[in-house]
Amino acid sequence: MMAESSPVRFGILGCANIARKVSRAIALAPNATISAVGSRSIEKATAYAKENGYPSTTKIYGSYEAVLDDPEVDAVYVPLPTSLHVKWAVLAAQKKKHVLLEKPVALNVKELDVILEECESNGVQYMDATMWMHHPRTAKMKEFLSDSQRFGQLKSVHSTFAYLGDTEFLENNIRVKSDLDALGALGDAGWYSIRAILWTSDYELPKTVTALRDPEFNEAGVILSCGASLSWKDGRVATFYCSFLANMAMDIVASGSKGNLRVHDFVVPFQENVAPFYTVEGSWVGELATSIHPAPSEHQVNTDLPQEALMVNEFSNLVGSIKGKGSKPEKKWPTISRKTQLVVDAVKASIEKGFVPVEIIY
Amino acid sequence: MMAESSPVRFGILGCANIARKVSRAIALAPNATISAVGSRSIEKATAYAKENGYPSTTKIYGSYEAVLDDPEVDAVYVPLPTSLHVKWAVLAAQKKKHVLLEKPVALNVKELDVILEECESNGVQYMDATMWMHHPRTAKMKEFLSDSQRFGQLKSVHSTFAYLGDTEFLENNIRVKSDLDALGALGDAGWYSIRAILWTSDYELPKTVTALRDPEFNEAGVILSCGASLSWKDGRVATFYCSFLANMAMDIVASGSKGNLRVHDFVVPFQENVAPFYTVEGSWVGELATSIHPAPSEHQVNTDLPQEALMVNEFSNLVGSIKGKGSKPEKKWPTISRKTQLVVDAVKASIEKGFVPVEIIY
Repeated sequence: MMAESSPVRFGILGCANIARKVSRAIALAPNATISAVGSRSIEKATAYAKENGYPSTTKIYGSYEAVLDDPEVDAVYVPLPTSLHVKWAVLAAQKKKHVLLEKPVALNVKELDVILEECESNGVQYMDATMWMHHPRTAKMKEFLSDSQRFGQLKSVHSTFAYLGDTEFLENNIRVKSDLDALGALGDAGWYSIRAILWTSDYELPKTVTALRDPEFNEAGVILSCGASLSWKDGRVATFYCSFLANMAMDIVASGSKGNLRVHDFVVPFQENVAPFYTVEGSWVGELATSIHPAPSEHQVNTDLPQEALMVNEFSNLVGSIKGKGSKPEKKWPTISRKTQLVVDAVKASIEKGFVPVEIIY
Repeated sequence: MMAESSPVRFGILGCANIARKVSRAIALAPNATISAVGSRSIEKATAYAKENGYPSTTKIYGSYEAVLDDPEVDAVYVPLPTSLHVKWAVLAAQKKKHVLLEKPVALNVKELDVILEECESNGVQYMDATMWMHHPRTAKMKEFLSDSQRFGQLKSVHSTFAYLGDTEFLENNIRVKSDLDALGALGDAGWYSIRAILWTSDYELPKTVTALRDPEFNEAGVILSCGASLSWKDGRVATFYCSFLANMAMDIVASGSKGNLRVHDFVVPFQENVAPFYTVEGSWVGELATSIHPAPSEHQVNTDLPQEALMVNEFSNLVGSIKGKGSKPEKKWPTISRKTQLVVDAVKASIEKGFVPVEIIY
């Protein structure tokens, strides 16, 4: 958590709403600072910088290119619509900028591979902006899942990530536009549930992915709700449901041979500074099977910094090591991003092929 | 809850372990009494009656037939292995005994229809022994699910029912024997999850049922773990996982357009006299999407009688009305039992056909 001697200087590409949250996170992270923001409209960028309390030293640009050309920018945060990711992430990498990429990271793994190869060949760090990965609760939950005595072997996991889009959202949000975020609810909400399942499974890819029948689409054919089942060679199964048409829920329910993990706000905690999860182990019925013991235990995990600031901090630590110590980029982040995208692609392919099982080829 | 003037007199067929729980329930229910018990061994029946504190007036028989021939038996509780249900439930109905039938009720819907037709033509009440249906918590949860303002329209539901069989169970329990309970975990644990899904869906049958790939089987080919997805015409989806190979979990996680319901001990509550469930409605993100509000609310539902005694009470009320007032048997119970069996059959068929979608024909 200790700040590097010189903080990582971020450039922000675009004035997306989500960038407001990440801008605050950059301000909160001890090893990062906002150096520049670029928009296609310099007026918009100026107003955005002001509204979001950017440092007075922030350089305001009327294009994304200008941010990438600024030698005082070490890293870029890319919250642009998904269809623009491959262009701008590749350009960023070519300009030797480290890339913190908003999800869904790409329209398909072919596109993502172009981005990842460019990052690798230019020696820059890549990370997708899946914030919950960086909450200390996530590490605590992983401790439980990894405990062969408490959780045992993973048998089944279900994840839901849904929220209810209002009329404005369902008509105008980029997440439902076929030319901007063509993956719809699968790329947006589904990304998190798929990541949750892979995280629970120690990132071992499933053998097959089968979409649940009858997703809901808008008139442009963009997915508004869908789901899938995943199966592994050893009998493990996973299911998920993602939706823009249901009340907000962010669940992971994992069954191990010896214990269970439950969390209901895994993507964004109910509260910023403390987050709950629930475990139980060795459950059994009492006399005459009229009760079950023990009841699950609640665990609360505190955090001084919000998860998105911890993400920025982790990313900046890696960037700092590359800059200051000549370290290699951390491969974990591109690897799990690519695996997540592979499953997203498989769900989409299964839907398009009539809900047949799709094999994952790594 | 008021006792009829003369309590319903139960005969118990066999000395199954689960019958101990139901025997206590009959003793607790104000409108029921144990009148007789039969086993293939009169010594076993005698010992069983003594161990379980049966009234001294209980008649002990060395056969199931003798219980059915006793004119002082109004109703029978049938906890025999599933493969014996059709024989003994049909005989009971023919002898004008009302039938409280342990689940899984039959090996397939064809068998169940034989039972149901015999009950109907003999004017006796049929009910399956799905105890959680009778807990006052279940009615409270249904109130929430039925509230168009709080829960809205059902979009997705997931249920898990699992418990970890030990070596003794996995080798010798009737639930893993192909000649006794050939449906294995699907008939035992899956029955509850399927019922939970149908209950959540107001018993509207899904259009298709698709088994999850790669269930686990024992050497005799009996299912030890499996799952399925269910889909309705309107985009609703459901998934479940049932298992003898995972720590005990009894979850329903339901997503509505406006709210969510969660319960983690739906089959047998953690405590006998008070049971929790969790609801949340109108969830949304706070400023900058750094928190979610509201957090779910816990609801505790008290019950004076355990759910299995409430089941006996409800069944006995119906029997009492038929006996005392000439009422017709309540059709709700055979109807939902048959629907549950139809889905069980569809999951089995889907597994056998290679995980293809199976249409439900009612």
